Amino acid sequence: MPPKPRSVSLTQVSEWEDGDLRRKDDYLAAEEPLEIRIGENPLSVTMRTPGNDTELAAGFLLTEGIVQRREQILALDADASAPTGQPNRGNVIQVSLAPEATPDFEKMRRHFFAASSCGICGKASIDAVRSRCLQPPNRQFRLDAETLLRLPDALRASQAVFGRTGGLHAAALFDARGNLLVLREDIGRHNAVDKVIGWALLEGRLPLGDSILLVSGRGGFEIVQKAIVAGLPLLASVSAPSSLAVQLARELGLTLIGFLRGRRFVIYAGDGRIQR
Amino acid sequence: MPPKPRSVSLTQVSEWEDGDLRRKDDYLAAEEPLEIRIGENPLSVTMRTPGNDTELAAGFLLTEGIVQRREQILALDADASAPTGQPNRGNVIQVSLAPEATPDFEKMRRHFFAASSCGICGKASIDAVRSRCLQPPNRQFRLDAETLLRLPDALRASQAVFGRTGGLHAAALFDARGNLLVLREDIGRHNAVDKVIGWALLEGRLPLGDSILLVSGRGGFEIVQKAIVAGLPLLASVSAPSSLAVQLARELGLTLIGFLRGRRFVIYAGDGRIQR
Repeated sequence: MPPKPRSVSLTQVSEWEDGDLRRKDDYLAAEEPLEIRIGENPLSVTMRTPGNDTELAAGFLLTEGIVQRREQILALDADASAPTGQPNRGNVIQVSLAPEATPDFEKMRRHFFAASSCGICGKASIDAVRSRCLQPPNRQFRLDAETLLRLPDALRASQAVFGRTGGLHAAALFDARGNLLVLREDIGRHNAVDKVIGWALLEGRLPLGDSILLVSGRGGFEIVQKAIVAGLPLLASVSAPSSLAVQLARELGLTLIGFLRGRRFVIYAGDGRIQR
Repeated sequence: MPPKPRSVSLTQVSEWEDGDLRRKDDYLAAEEPLEIRIGENPLSVTMRTPGNDTELAAGFLLTEGIVQRREQILALDADASAPTGQPNRGNVIQVSLAPEATPDFEKMRRHFFAASSCGICGKASIDAVRSRCLQPPNRQFRLDAETLLRLPDALRASQAVFGRTGGLHAAALFDARGNLLVLREDIGRHNAVDKVIGWALLEGRLPLGDSILLVSGRGGFEIVQKAIVAGLPLLASVSAPSSLAVQLARELGLTLIGFLRGRRFVIYAGDGRIQR
């Protein structure tokens, strides 16, 4: 059995408070690189909090457009690449894909550094997401405002790790009645979202046409993109979205909520799904 | 003259408050992709807030280890690649480097997708940063605790944009007496840091052996890495660092401060530079 990956680590720090300095123990959010490999080919390296790494890899494969269905992932192996005791043990996910989903690495090698500037604008970024959607967001989905207001407290109550380190982002799926389906945490917000979506993919729950995704922190383009690819009708965050995140949500029909705090929130796109 | 890039954009949103829904105008933090090109070769694409893009490119080139000195950057051109009126105008930075600093793209093409898992651990990540340092962090640098306590207010007072959108990260350089040298904002924290370090590089101020970097939000591995490469002796943030950020700071001699709020802060590494 490999050692269980730990999402927090303990260290000694010095705390200065109003002129007094004292040594104390402190918990830190763990961060380590993770490499996703397809066969012999490295696909990506990301800094993440260890834990739920196969979900992270599955979510990444889906939201980056490599796979569209659970069946295309033949195997996800967290410990195939390094012997026990090696420092990188557990930091490599070995992926085996169905032949039709396996990227053409020879083609990628040839085109990766080719000219791409014709596609460098917000419009091109939105078109790229559109081509990756599992289905258009569910137009029939409705959510009570009062249910929405309860979600941040439900998320915080479940964030066992957050309370200790203050250093982790969270992403959580809820159903339309506000029941928590899954919660994942990570030093990177996009990783927390990939873990949640990867969980849903591996559980056979995609597309997520009747669920809500709530994220801590900001809702940028990358997070909206991942929500749309997974088929979610509603994304909520406790902070502000970016201009391109709002544009993407409006063009592709996602309901985007920001500043969900206390008894207030802002609807940036898709007002029709919120019932007063 | 190209249109001035805008860091905020105005849009109509719906605000729900305790059962009442009203339409209102809202400012959003702007987000657009930026491609950095060296000659005909794309080097990277990042989602960023438009503004100070040449500084962002310069900082990225330095902190990613492509260049070590100002003189290696022969030109940074923000508008060479797209005709006026094209949607991607201003989203491409064309870089010209001295021959000895120009990456061997043919070699990168051949090796990019080659096996790399032997280097996927925290230790290897730290070794990679060590090889990129301009100089070891200045051991003689000292900072009064009272000066450190004043920095967050000085940063907030200068964050003109932040007050309107709530959606931008900030990074700022200060001298040892607490004077603000430069402040940059971005939807991505690592971009805000690259803009600040790029400013210093273009101004001929590197290495930053007598300056302090203050960042909003969390201090992860990537931010600590950039601070160390730029030669900074002290990095402070208002939130928590990660395990690998602390390990990197301790091994390479950076003073790392977290939770800098009110009259309290936590010293995670390099206690010796803080004077009570």
